[in-house]
Amino acid sequence: MKYGYFDDENKEYVITDPATPHAWINYLGTGDFVSIISNTAGGYSFYKDARLRRITRYRYNNVPMDVGGKYFYINDGAEFWSPTWQPVRKKLDSYECRHGLGYTKITSQKNGIESEITYFVPTDENCEIHKVVLKNVSGVSKKIKLYSFVEFALWNALDDMTNFQRNFSTSEVEVENSVIYHKTEYRERRNHYAFYSCSEKLAGFDTDREKFIGKYNGFNEPEVVVNNKSTNYINSGWSPIASHCVEVELKAGEEKIMVFVLGYVENPVDKKWTAKNVINKSKAYDLIKKYDIAGVDNAILKLKEYHESMSHNYICKSNDPRLDRMVNIWNPYQCHTTFNLARSTSGFESGIGRGIGFRDSNQDVMGALTFIKDRSRERILDLAATQFPDGSAFHQYQPLTKKGNADLGGGFNDDPLWIVFSTISYIKETGDRTILDEKRKFNDTGVPETILEHLDRSVNFVVNNKGPHKLPLIGRADWNDCLNLNCFSETPDESFQTCTNKDGKNAESVFIAGMFLAIVPEYIRLLE
Amino acid sequence: MKYGYFDDENKEYVITDPATPHAWINYLGTGDFVSIISNTAGGYSFYKDARLRRITRYRYNNVPMDVGGKYFYINDGAEFWSPTWQPVRKKLDSYECRHGLGYTKITSQKNGIESEITYFVPTDENCEIHKVVLKNVSGVSKKIKLYSFVEFALWNALDDMTNFQRNFSTSEVEVENSVIYHKTEYRERRNHYAFYSCSEKLAGFDTDREKFIGKYNGFNEPEVVVNNKSTNYINSGWSPIASHCVEVELKAGEEKIMVFVLGYVENPVDKKWTAKNVINKSKAYDLIKKYDIAGVDNAILKLKEYHESMSHNYICKSNDPRLDRMVNIWNPYQCHTTFNLARSTSGFESGIGRGIGFRDSNQDVMGALTFIKDRSRERILDLAATQFPDGSAFHQYQPLTKKGNADLGGGFNDDPLWIVFSTISYIKETGDRTILDEKRKFNDTGVPETILEHLDRSVNFVVNNKGPHKLPLIGRADWNDCLNLNCFSETPDESFQTCTNKDGKNAESVFIAGMFLAIVPEYIRLLE
Repeated sequence: MKYGYFDDENKEYVITDPATPHAWINYLGTGDFVSIISNTAGGYSFYKDARLRRITRYRYNNVPMDVGGKYFYINDGAEFWSPTWQPVRKKLDSYECRHGLGYTKITSQKNGIESEITYFVPTDENCEIHKVVLKNVSGVSKKIKLYSFVEFALWNALDDMTNFQRNFSTSEVEVENSVIYHKTEYRERRNHYAFYSCSEKLAGFDTDREKFIGKYNGFNEPEVVVNNKSTNYINSGWSPIASHCVEVELKAGEEKIMVFVLGYVENPVDKKWTAKNVINKSKAYDLIKKYDIAGVDNAILKLKEYHESMSHNYICKSNDPRLDRMVNIWNPYQCHTTFNLARSTSGFESGIGRGIGFRDSNQDVMGALTFIKDRSRERILDLAATQFPDGSAFHQYQPLTKKGNADLGGGFNDDPLWIVFSTISYIKETGDRTILDEKRKFNDTGVPETILEHLDRSVNFVVNNKGPHKLPLIGRADWNDCLNLNCFSETPDESFQTCTNKDGKNAESVFIAGMFLAIVPEYIRLLE
Repeated sequence: MKYGYFDDENKEYVITDPATPHAWINYLGTGDFVSIISNTAGGYSFYKDARLRRITRYRYNNVPMDVGGKYFYINDGAEFWSPTWQPVRKKLDSYECRHGLGYTKITSQKNGIESEITYFVPTDENCEIHKVVLKNVSGVSKKIKLYSFVEFALWNALDDMTNFQRNFSTSEVEVENSVIYHKTEYRERRNHYAFYSCSEKLAGFDTDREKFIGKYNGFNEPEVVVNNKSTNYINSGWSPIASHCVEVELKAGEEKIMVFVLGYVENPVDKKWTAKNVINKSKAYDLIKKYDIAGVDNAILKLKEYHESMSHNYICKSNDPRLDRMVNIWNPYQCHTTFNLARSTSGFESGIGRGIGFRDSNQDVMGALTFIKDRSRERILDLAATQFPDGSAFHQYQPLTKKGNADLGGGFNDDPLWIVFSTISYIKETGDRTILDEKRKFNDTGVPETILEHLDRSVNFVVNNKGPHKLPLIGRADWNDCLNLNCFSETPDESFQTCTNKDGKNAESVFIAGMFLAIVPEYIRLLE
């Protein structure tokens, strides 16, 4: 049961058997554009908010497991397969997936065609690059067709999986040269679209899922790939996709490099259109132009440099290479990911229910403080803005709107202390006390108050909410999310956490008391 | 492009090609237990409420289309297939699906095995029956294995598709003889479970999806069926399923009848257990015992009698058989279905967002009044209980809790008139004026008031909410749901219908005015 190994020199985890027990995923993206990608190219992308700006569609808990992704199909005339194994799942002559820092590279070989696909999101850019290298190692000339495939989501991920009577009537695409634009609802209230480009002249394209896949086929045998012919059909309604078809002729030993860009673009409202029903594509043009082959290679170097800088400012050298590897490579990478994503998506977290957690995100700040300073400051300020005037806080907020989630609300009484903890950690690491003078409103209303005031109210919330033994009241829960002492729901159709049917004046939290004693004296010392 | 035809004598629609353009579904159930089932056995079941009591899992908008259902697999040693075509999709020697009134019968033949599977929900019973008849028409003896398959949902359909970090840790099953019990969360707050029984001694069983299907297989090639051997594994966490394996030996010409029962059981809280961790199965035993082969045949007869009675009390005989067929068979069946389901599930309506609509359900009552009288009365009373004291109403409510949906709220200003319309239609059809004296609370609070008072307030709501031209104010919308004149959302992340950013004091509805004039004079005449 060995599926791979660590390559410490390249800071990669190398998977050698595609049929891992679950989809083993990597995170792509250093800013607003984020993707999760599995070792067989499954996963999806979103902009800022996994719920409200879902760009491509994925199906959690699916059969087969982990289908829906950034797929390629090769048809050599005799046979077709996926160079990432999924979704076709035909046996490959060789397979290797390298999950690196911010990129995933899947290399395989079949029928004399070697392919290497590198998936990554350039630093601070709203796009994902698929660099495809095909090489003919068969010894004779080969003529093949390469098909790309992404399935667009209809933006709101929850609506996308529940509200079909509306959503199936909304989709719109544009196709211009080798670029497919997903402009669903752009005509109405949206000022953003997505696109999927290809660096090559196309032999054909597809934009409609049913036309591409067929009625009863799976992703493993799309009708277009089986028939080896694109339909050039323009989608309107139902399920929009983007698929390019490129004819590639390779002499023995010859190789070809192609670039596919999956991009997200926002336009100012008064610059949405260039003509009636023609969307303003200038930002897409810029992105596509920037990422030619040289641009892509440059972006890969820049990404490597970025991740060199995203590391703790200490190095562990022990007698155990496993410890060194974890401390020096994977722990900072993990901290970078949790900071960036606020744990809002994974192979099991659907990205729909959470948004950004108050407690979690203060913890994430602390994990990344040694190498993420500016954005930690910004995150603390965002979190402060979701506090209530009494110092308590919304337990979660949506990253896109930065508004607290009213569905869940507040009342997790350890929350206020976490922002005190993260802020003093920030000051101790950076020496930047000016954060205390920054001003933010409480719950996004009223007048802005200093962060110092926010922290004072946080502390006072605990002081002012004590129980019979003068210990802090637990509210809905403390760090032990499941200790819902004031919530005794007897009906299975409501949440334990939101059903408050006790007055909350009795149940106390020893945990919050300990936390108070650990953090507040340090807070006071820091202010002296 | 002909996929089937009407069989008027048997009141069935007969499908002769399984690969219909979309899943063509039928509705099973006359009361609280409801299923949708496609012409290839796709679909799911729920008890009362498609969102809050989902019994089996289905994936809308899936690839392949319409997978997840009440499946059977046959393995004859040489080959395996599904007698309902899906999910294996191997070519059958013959195929026919008959969607009848409250039942669906799928007959097929392959490799000398004829199979006939009848799916139905007995009248007013909380179970679905799968009657399977296998006949050996090969001319020689055959020994085959039959595998059943249903995938249980984790009860709350929305949670089931979003909240994996919790739900994947909850599932529990029990297996006793030939019955598989889905008792997920029964230990905690639920007093209901589901079961799937088989009338035969088992050669094996499966209760865990991954064990049955395999890691990367589809429903079309479950590992257990491919290997022709059940695992007898007891599921705990992840995805619970129920699969029986029956070994069947058939001489030339011999046939065998088997019964599978998918049931839903509720127990009183103090009678949940018979021993520690052993659920009280007595109601399941009763159901299983009742539906032996004779019981099943009897229930089919009863169902036919029921649907004979569920018809308009007039018969149309015209020169056009298509008109007669629609008026006499399919319109009453459709009205029965919309009444029973309140349009809350279909092949495209996921059953998660709506519950029971106020306007729709009053209309549904009118469609079914000629043959559903008692339950129409009850529905009107339920609807009245979701009215606000000013006569307006929640636009939707959950069938399970009978509480208004606060997410959507009220403000659809045509709503109040629809309950006046349905009530006067009810009285005109039945002569039963006592409904006016029945009492219900407004919004389930305060003191009960007569239905007459409810209707008066409904009328007065319109009278008291007029605009500048003395026409009724539209509120959020009238019957034209999309005419959201007071809702000008500019952000795509909120609903047009719930965003009220105008004071609502200007936009009037000519439709509501016309409706008022059509209905209210009749209401007054009826009271005179």
